[in-house]
Amino acid sequence: MSMERRSPFKIPRIPEMTVRRLSVYTRSLLQLEEDGVKTISSQELAERFSLNSAQVRKDLAYFGEFGVRGIGYYVSGLKAELQRILGLDREWQVALVGFGNLGSALFHYKGFSRQGFRISTIFDDDATKWGKVVDGVTIQPMQDLPREAKARSIQIAIVAVPGESAQAVTEKLVAAGIKTILNFAPGRIKAGKDVRLKNVDLAIELETLSFYLAQGSR
Amino acid sequence: MSMERRSPFKIPRIPEMTVRRLSVYTRSLLQLEEDGVKTISSQELAERFSLNSAQVRKDLAYFGEFGVRGIGYYVSGLKAELQRILGLDREWQVALVGFGNLGSALFHYKGFSRQGFRISTIFDDDATKWGKVVDGVTIQPMQDLPREAKARSIQIAIVAVPGESAQAVTEKLVAAGIKTILNFAPGRIKAGKDVRLKNVDLAIELETLSFYLAQGSR
Repeated sequence: MSMERRSPFKIPRIPEMTVRRLSVYTRSLLQLEEDGVKTISSQELAERFSLNSAQVRKDLAYFGEFGVRGIGYYVSGLKAELQRILGLDREWQVALVGFGNLGSALFHYKGFSRQGFRISTIFDDDATKWGKVVDGVTIQPMQDLPREAKARSIQIAIVAVPGESAQAVTEKLVAAGIKTILNFAPGRIKAGKDVRLKNVDLAIELETLSFYLAQGSR
Repeated sequence: MSMERRSPFKIPRIPEMTVRRLSVYTRSLLQLEEDGVKTISSQELAERFSLNSAQVRKDLAYFGEFGVRGIGYYVSGLKAELQRILGLDREWQVALVGFGNLGSALFHYKGFSRQGFRISTIFDDDATKWGKVVDGVTIQPMQDLPREAKARSIQIAIVAVPGESAQAVTEKLVAAGIKTILNFAPGRIKAGKDVRLKNVDLAIELETLSFYLAQGSR
């Protein structure tokens, strides 16, 4: 496989949807690898996973030339390349804020650790939870955040607190130097331009389904 | 506002990404409405919510002509239109399968009921949970699914069981006539072509963040 890569300094601004699709391609390639498939064309890849082959080629083109004429993509090689691009070739230290139902579910979510996201510290403002150890991780008060963030080189935070606490929590995270935040709390959160804040809205997933139901019922 | 709508029979196949963006536009319009904004141009809308104005126009064009020359969009009118298109102008009856941490978090997730998704029945295979009532909803054994699905006109199911149970659960749902499924369980699930199955992979959200972190660290 041609591994000529563009210098990161020349990489144009990548649309978030492209990044999202890279994750999907990586999962598809993992599945192909498990199935023993060695090479695949963009057409086959697209057909097998209901993707758009022109889109696949366009998305990959941001990062280099991965296809080989007459062969297509080498499954394992392309998978490893995409994992590297997505930062999945290393372990990220993640702080979880909020250990209610959702926080607990996210902590135990297998998909995170499988991709190298290690929740290495948990914060909650409920004093009755402080000191409890969950799978080797101690639940701590928010006031320990600045020290812990530094000591554990936390790069990413997951916010799973009620909506009304989310803004204050976000500000504390940013003050502690954590500027990459995945927020599950509903409602508006404001953060500076140097903060990469991603809001997850689970209702959107249901709405894509109700759209098709509504279309069908007309 | 011009409300000429294309007949649903003439609506071309809508890309899922467009549907997803309709949800985002609806949220933006709701926010504008709360802020007392009456009309907005596609450019202003795009700037204010970091959207792409050409994309906004293209997405909306699937469903009709919503803009008014010299005025832009009427915020409340467009919001109501999009809610109708997304099927958010009615209540959907939802079954939740699996009442562990994640199921419990999803049951209490405010975003669902706010958009008209009513979890009206819960199933779990843990007999110790049967008969327990959560916010007026009784947890029942899976064997009651066919009867309950019919009695409550369940249209959508949310699957929040461990990965190894997800395939069997999906088959039971389909057999009970529920063919619109939102799956939070990891791993592969197979379903017939008449089933609309949407897999939620929460790790993808983290991966869009690690991508930017990885790019920044090179």
